[in-house]
Amino acid sequence: MRIIGIDPGIAISGYGILDFDEYKNTFELITSGSVQTDKNNSTEQRLLELHNDISELIKMYSPDCAVIEKLFYFKNAKTIIPVSEARGVICMTFAKYGINIAEYTPQQAKQVITGYGRAEKPEVADMVKIILNTNNIPKLDDTVDAIALGICHIRNIKLTAEVV
Amino acid sequence: MRIIGIDPGIAISGYGILDFDEYKNTFELITSGSVQTDKNNSTEQRLLELHNDISELIKMYSPDCAVIEKLFYFKNAKTIIPVSEARGVICMTFAKYGINIAEYTPQQAKQVITGYGRAEKPEVADMVKIILNTNNIPKLDDTVDAIALGICHIRNIKLTAEVV
Repeated sequence: MRIIGIDPGIAISGYGILDFDEYKNTFELITSGSVQTDKNNSTEQRLLELHNDISELIKMYSPDCAVIEKLFYFKNAKTIIPVSEARGVICMTFAKYGINIAEYTPQQAKQVITGYGRAEKPEVADMVKIILNTNNIPKLDDTVDAIALGICHIRNIKLTAEVV
Repeated sequence: MRIIGIDPGIAISGYGILDFDEYKNTFELITSGSVQTDKNNSTEQRLLELHNDISELIKMYSPDCAVIEKLFYFKNAKTIIPVSEARGVICMTFAKYGINIAEYTPQQAKQVITGYGRAEKPEVADMVKIILNTNNIPKLDDTVDAIALGICHIRNIKLTAEVV
């Protein structure tokens, strides 16, 4: 099962693509990065860039499922409108390609990754390194957060499977 | 010049299509209505329905310009995320078809239509009736608001042209 985690944004959307082997109960990071839009363009042009870039990622990597950060209005009140606009475009793009979406709040992802819902970004990055058994993780927070969302979903699936 | 006004929403998006004759300095309402999504569907499915329905409207009526309500986070805090997600999809859809977007706040539209930025919805509806010289305007607030946005933009263009 191939999973794409997305940390949405109008300027930068991080992504992390992970393959989860349900039989071996293992997973690995396939690739990660970010989609960035030109700040000199109009908002609608940037939303179109985002749609086109996410479409390209889907065509290139054929994910089975997308995991997208869930938003709350009381967090980042100033940016909630542009972030939500970007998130709407991203969700609609996955729907267009028939890809199901799972959602987690940043707190849920932090809880699953570090055991603490209010963990700071460097703690999340350190745990992602340990989980993926690598020293080489992306520098961009948005990309690390996207990978963390993907891992969070895989652990959630594993947990559900173990309980059943 | 054909203008489409849009009052965005995830459940209901109102629209009003107006033709503005820049030589005669007159305008008329061509059609109006609403795009509605199925509340039993997932958010991403509803966003896709919205994208498809707005695309259909564009193909059917070929507007030259779209006028979309501008949002503020302190208004309707509970609904700001779904409304912004819908708005993002609508803006991206117009960008896809190369249609420019103008934005006005509800207060700006009310000011232009009624002369008072805090006018109530019935006052806006009454003024839209008078401006369009008809008794027959839509019952749905979202549709009336969309028509009002279109008229607001036309009056703004006229004003700018007169000043120039």
